[in-house]
Amino acid sequence: MNDIFLKACRGERTSPVPVWFMRQAGRYLPEYQEIRGKSDFLTMCKTPELAAEVTLQPVELLGVDAAILFSDILIPLEAMGANLAFEEGRGPVLQPPVRGEDDINRLHHIEPERDVPFVLETIKILRRELADKVPLIGFAGAPFTLASYLIEGGGTKSFVNIKRMFFANPVLFRRVMDLITDVTISYLSAQIRAGAQAIQLFDTWAGVLTRHDFRDAALVYARRIFNELRPLGVPMVYFVFDGGHLLDLVRLSGADVIGLDWRTDIDTALFLMGDGNVVVQGNLDPCMLFLSEERLRDRIAEILFQGTMAKSHIFNLGHGILPEIPPEKVKLAVEIIHELSA
Amino acid sequence: MNDIFLKACRGERTSPVPVWFMRQAGRYLPEYQEIRGKSDFLTMCKTPELAAEVTLQPVELLGVDAAILFSDILIPLEAMGANLAFEEGRGPVLQPPVRGEDDINRLHHIEPERDVPFVLETIKILRRELADKVPLIGFAGAPFTLASYLIEGGGTKSFVNIKRMFFANPVLFRRVMDLITDVTISYLSAQIRAGAQAIQLFDTWAGVLTRHDFRDAALVYARRIFNELRPLGVPMVYFVFDGGHLLDLVRLSGADVIGLDWRTDIDTALFLMGDGNVVVQGNLDPCMLFLSEERLRDRIAEILFQGTMAKSHIFNLGHGILPEIPPEKVKLAVEIIHELSA
Repeated sequence: MNDIFLKACRGERTSPVPVWFMRQAGRYLPEYQEIRGKSDFLTMCKTPELAAEVTLQPVELLGVDAAILFSDILIPLEAMGANLAFEEGRGPVLQPPVRGEDDINRLHHIEPERDVPFVLETIKILRRELADKVPLIGFAGAPFTLASYLIEGGGTKSFVNIKRMFFANPVLFRRVMDLITDVTISYLSAQIRAGAQAIQLFDTWAGVLTRHDFRDAALVYARRIFNELRPLGVPMVYFVFDGGHLLDLVRLSGADVIGLDWRTDIDTALFLMGDGNVVVQGNLDPCMLFLSEERLRDRIAEILFQGTMAKSHIFNLGHGILPEIPPEKVKLAVEIIHELSA
Repeated sequence: MNDIFLKACRGERTSPVPVWFMRQAGRYLPEYQEIRGKSDFLTMCKTPELAAEVTLQPVELLGVDAAILFSDILIPLEAMGANLAFEEGRGPVLQPPVRGEDDINRLHHIEPERDVPFVLETIKILRRELADKVPLIGFAGAPFTLASYLIEGGGTKSFVNIKRMFFANPVLFRRVMDLITDVTISYLSAQIRAGAQAIQLFDTWAGVLTRHDFRDAALVYARRIFNELRPLGVPMVYFVFDGGHLLDLVRLSGADVIGLDWRTDIDTALFLMGDGNVVVQGNLDPCMLFLSEERLRDRIAEILFQGTMAKSHIFNLGHGILPEIPPEKVKLAVEIIHELSA
C-alpha cells in the first residue's frame, strides 16, 4: 500500500510528500456529477455503494495519496434528532434551531451502529476496495462548528445566536457542547473501528472566535475528543479554518497534524506554533488552481519548501476544492507536487 | 468640539479614549427602524436629510465621540454604471457581473459633484449640525472589496470569480482595479472637500487573500489612495476585516490608523506590526455586547489596557453592530469605555 500519508502523519519525512485535497470527491468532477444527477446529496451520503464510489473517484482519477470518506459533517446532527435538509442555493437548514432547554431535550446521544450504519458500511466497503492502494481518512465536524449549525438553524455570517448563547447563557451552551462532544467521540470511534485509518476534525467556524473565547467555546471540546480517541492509535488531524490567530492554541489540542488554511504561510504558522516540531497539512489557495501551469508550479514549490521546515508535511488545499476548478488542473497539481517533492 | 477622536488619530493619547462603532447608525436602533420603515435602504442613502438624520442618531443616543456618514460602500459602483439593488435576505446584487472587457467598458469614472451629489450634501448638512459636537468620518470601500462585488455580481463565500480573474487574467484584473482606485480617490477627495474630517477605507474582503496576493491584489491600490489623499490633511483609517495574517503589510499602507477586527488581540497586533508606534482602532467582538454588565466591563478593560501599549487607541468594535444587539447595551458600553479610560 502507498502509506506515505500515514507516515507523514506520524512525523516521518517522505519522498514524495503525500497529497490529498479537501472535498476531492465533489462537484468539480464530471464523474461525480453523473452520480449526483441521479440522486440527491443526502441520499448519496446514506447509500454506501454510492458514497464509496465517489470516495474512490479522486483516488483513481487524480492519483492522490489518501481517500477521505464521502459524507457530510451534519450527518450526526440528524442522527441526534435534528431535522436536516439541504436547500438548493441556500445550503444546510436545521429547523427549528436549538435555542433553549426544550430544544436540547429533543436531541439525544447516538449509537453509530444503529443510527448511522451507512457510514460504517461505506467505510467497510472502502477498506476492501482500497486495501492495496491508499489509506482511508474518516472525519467529523468539531463541536463548535456543529453547534453553530444547530443553534443558528443553518449557515450564518454573524454567528450571533451561538455567540449570544455562549456569552449570555454559558450553562446552556455547555450542555449543547457536551452532548455534541460525546456524540462525536462515539461517531469517530465507530469510524475507526469500522476501518478508518486516520481521522480529521473540521472546525470550519471556530475561526470566528477571539483567542480568549476559542479556548472555552471550542478548544476544550476538541481536546476532549483527541484525548478520548488517542488510545485507538490512528493519526488525528485538526483543521481550524481561518484560525491563523489561534495556531498556538490549536497546537495544544492534542492532534497529531495541524491543518492550515491558505491565509497563513507555513513558515509563519510554524513560528506561531513555537517551533518546527509539528506536522502540518496544507495550504494552497484552491483558487490558485486557476493559475497558469508555470505559476502554479512556482506556488507549489514555495509551499513545499516551507513544508520542509516542519517535522513533516502533507500537501493539501487551504479549503475544499470549488466546483468551478477544472479537474485536469487538479490532476496536474498532484503530478507537480509528487514531481517536485520526490 | 469634542475632538478626542481626531487627537487619537494623530497619535495623541487622550483621556478618555474615544469610541465610535462601525454601523452605529443601523437597524439595532428603534429610531433608525422608524425611518427605515418609511423608505428603502438606497433611498435613505440618497436622501441627504434622511441620511443626515440617521447619522446623528447614535451621537445623540449613545454619546459616541465621532459620527460616521450613513451611506453604503457600493454607492460609487452604481455611480460608475453598475446596476445596484438590495434584495431582502440576499444582500446587494450587481448584475451583470464584470467578467470581461465589455463589462469593464460599460463602467466609467465618476465626478462626485455630478454623480453622487447626495453624499456631499449629506456631509454638508452634517457638518452644520455637528459643528459643536463631534467630528464626521467619511468612508469608502477599498478597491479589492468593491471589485469583489462587481466581479462576483454580489456577495460571495468563495471569491472564486475575482480570484480567477486575478490569477488567470491579471491584465484585466488590473484594469478593473485601476478604475476603481481612481474613482475612490475622487470620491474620498470630494468627501473631504465637502467637510469629512477623517476617512476610513473598508477592506471587508481582502482578508481572504494570502500575504503574497494581498500585496498585488489589494495593498498597492489602497496605498495609492492613501498617498493621493495625504496632502488633504485628514486622518485616514485602513480596516482590513479578518486581516490578522496581513497586519505587517497593512501597516505599510500609509494609513494613520489601523483598524483591527476582534480576532487579533491588540497586543498581538502590535507585535505583528513590529512595535507599539502605531495608532490602532478596535476591537470588541460585537457579540460581546450580549455579556452581562460585569463581564462586559472586564472585556472592555482588557482591550483598553492593551490599547495603552499602542501609540494611541480609538475604541471600536471588531465589526459592525448587529441588528440583534440591545441598544441599551451599546450605550452602556460607551459609558464603561469612557469611565474606565478617563
